[in-house]
Amino acid sequence: MADQTPFTKGHGTENDFVLVPDLEGDRPLSSEQAARLADRHSGIGGDGVIRVVPTAFATEPEVLQQASTARWFMDYRNADGSTAEMCGNGTRVFAAYLRREGLETANEFAIATRAGVKVVRFEGPDLIAVNLGAWRLAQPHIADAEGFDALVHLDGHEPLSALTLDLGNPHTVVALPETVDLETLDLHRLPVVNPEPEHGTNVEFVRPMGAGHIRMRVRERGVGETRSCGTGAAAAALATRFWAGDRGDSWTVDVPGGRLRVRMLADQQVELAGPAVLVADGTTSLV
Amino acid sequence: MADQTPFTKGHGTENDFVLVPDLEGDRPLSSEQAARLADRHSGIGGDGVIRVVPTAFATEPEVLQQASTARWFMDYRNADGSTAEMCGNGTRVFAAYLRREGLETANEFAIATRAGVKVVRFEGPDLIAVNLGAWRLAQPHIADAEGFDALVHLDGHEPLSALTLDLGNPHTVVALPETVDLETLDLHRLPVVNPEPEHGTNVEFVRPMGAGHIRMRVRERGVGETRSCGTGAAAAALATRFWAGDRGDSWTVDVPGGRLRVRMLADQQVELAGPAVLVADGTTSLV
Repeated sequence: MADQTPFTKGHGTENDFVLVPDLEGDRPLSSEQAARLADRHSGIGGDGVIRVVPTAFATEPEVLQQASTARWFMDYRNADGSTAEMCGNGTRVFAAYLRREGLETANEFAIATRAGVKVVRFEGPDLIAVNLGAWRLAQPHIADAEGFDALVHLDGHEPLSALTLDLGNPHTVVALPETVDLETLDLHRLPVVNPEPEHGTNVEFVRPMGAGHIRMRVRERGVGETRSCGTGAAAAALATRFWAGDRGDSWTVDVPGGRLRVRMLADQQVELAGPAVLVADGTTSLV
Repeated sequence: MADQTPFTKGHGTENDFVLVPDLEGDRPLSSEQAARLADRHSGIGGDGVIRVVPTAFATEPEVLQQASTARWFMDYRNADGSTAEMCGNGTRVFAAYLRREGLETANEFAIATRAGVKVVRFEGPDLIAVNLGAWRLAQPHIADAEGFDALVHLDGHEPLSALTLDLGNPHTVVALPETVDLETLDLHRLPVVNPEPEHGTNVEFVRPMGAGHIRMRVRERGVGETRSCGTGAAAAALATRFWAGDRGDSWTVDVPGGRLRVRMLADQQVELAGPAVLVADGTTSLV
């Protein structure tokens, strides 16, 4: 029981995280420790790990310079322990933790991330919005002419038309034809994307449900199918809006883990909103 | 934060469990609550949930009658919330919890389960043994004549010879030929077992590593591949021993989640031994 580290487990649309507070900035977290925390069988388990640390104690210069704007830094780690820039669903869980602990008290505040300052806004107890920043079509000259810029090959199906977007990370959004059932689609099979962005891509399979409403499933790069992906939901809404002739600025996106709202903002920015749940609090050994 | 329920997360060879103490027997756990606790994304996450309750407070007559022998009842739930008889790896984690909490202090003690009283013995901090009880060949007349009693069909492979055993639950153990690589075997594909026991079967793929030493991977009935399966490890050792002409009474079984020891006892009984790790302690809401 020596050297027990406090943690909180939380999720946003079932994208789940282990939060580790480091309020004095004196508990660095190695990639091995983060990976052990995220391990679902031998650790606590999560899609990622978030160290909660004052921005002023950040060691990375591009984070440290955010200290005047954002008091708290979301030090995000992937499940393999590597650092990551950002995580849309993670920002809500991080913000909900800061509020519950009284570390932030306003309805709107800025947080520091490796992708720059993000502003979160509490619209209600179950709806937290965050500006994800700028997005762009990966190949606008092709997309503008054809509506699509890629083909996705999935075993047992005709090639599926798709559109690739950049939201800081790459997404290829598949327009699922009526003949293909979203719910039973076998995403164990790795889709082949042509052309594929240089460092791979996340693939979203989308079904329109009505005006401003889509359902989607996502296969995340290097991970497999997940219950939710924040930037993926935004990409799916943006692609569907593009195909609809740029109509509609507010979208409801149903993912396997729940419901998200995506809004288009000025200056080619996109906002993600959804719930955050703090599930459990406890202590664990990091040794 | 209302109505916080304490829990402990632990694992045995990465077969992991959420333990919920109910020391006064006044906190019944519904199947819905158990399933929510076991959910890896929206809950705490585990292969199963174990309620820790005095045997004297059990409501099931066949458990209650064990109260004179075993002070504590391992009220085991599957990840879907349904009750289960027993779990070999779970008994070690349960026993480690009882000892850490001072609820049992001896090196050897009995625990109550839905499969009857089980005796656990601490051989060291990382080695806890439990008598799993009786085992038998499912079809001894066929097995005795041929060495095998079933074929397992796995996409991309010749039919694989196998042996079916009953350890309270059914196991079909595949003798993997030299030409098939255990590590890269694709267990996403559901193996077809012929003949298959009426209620399905767990399938173990085994590679001999030397005298009394095997490696295995397991696909659990209704679950998929897991990091470890206690009765599966025992079945794999028993089948390999059978094929070796009933030689060897102590086996080392390497599973993806660690190492287990299987020993054959008198009266057609089999013992499983291995580690148990208590990973984290905390509180969660059951509402």
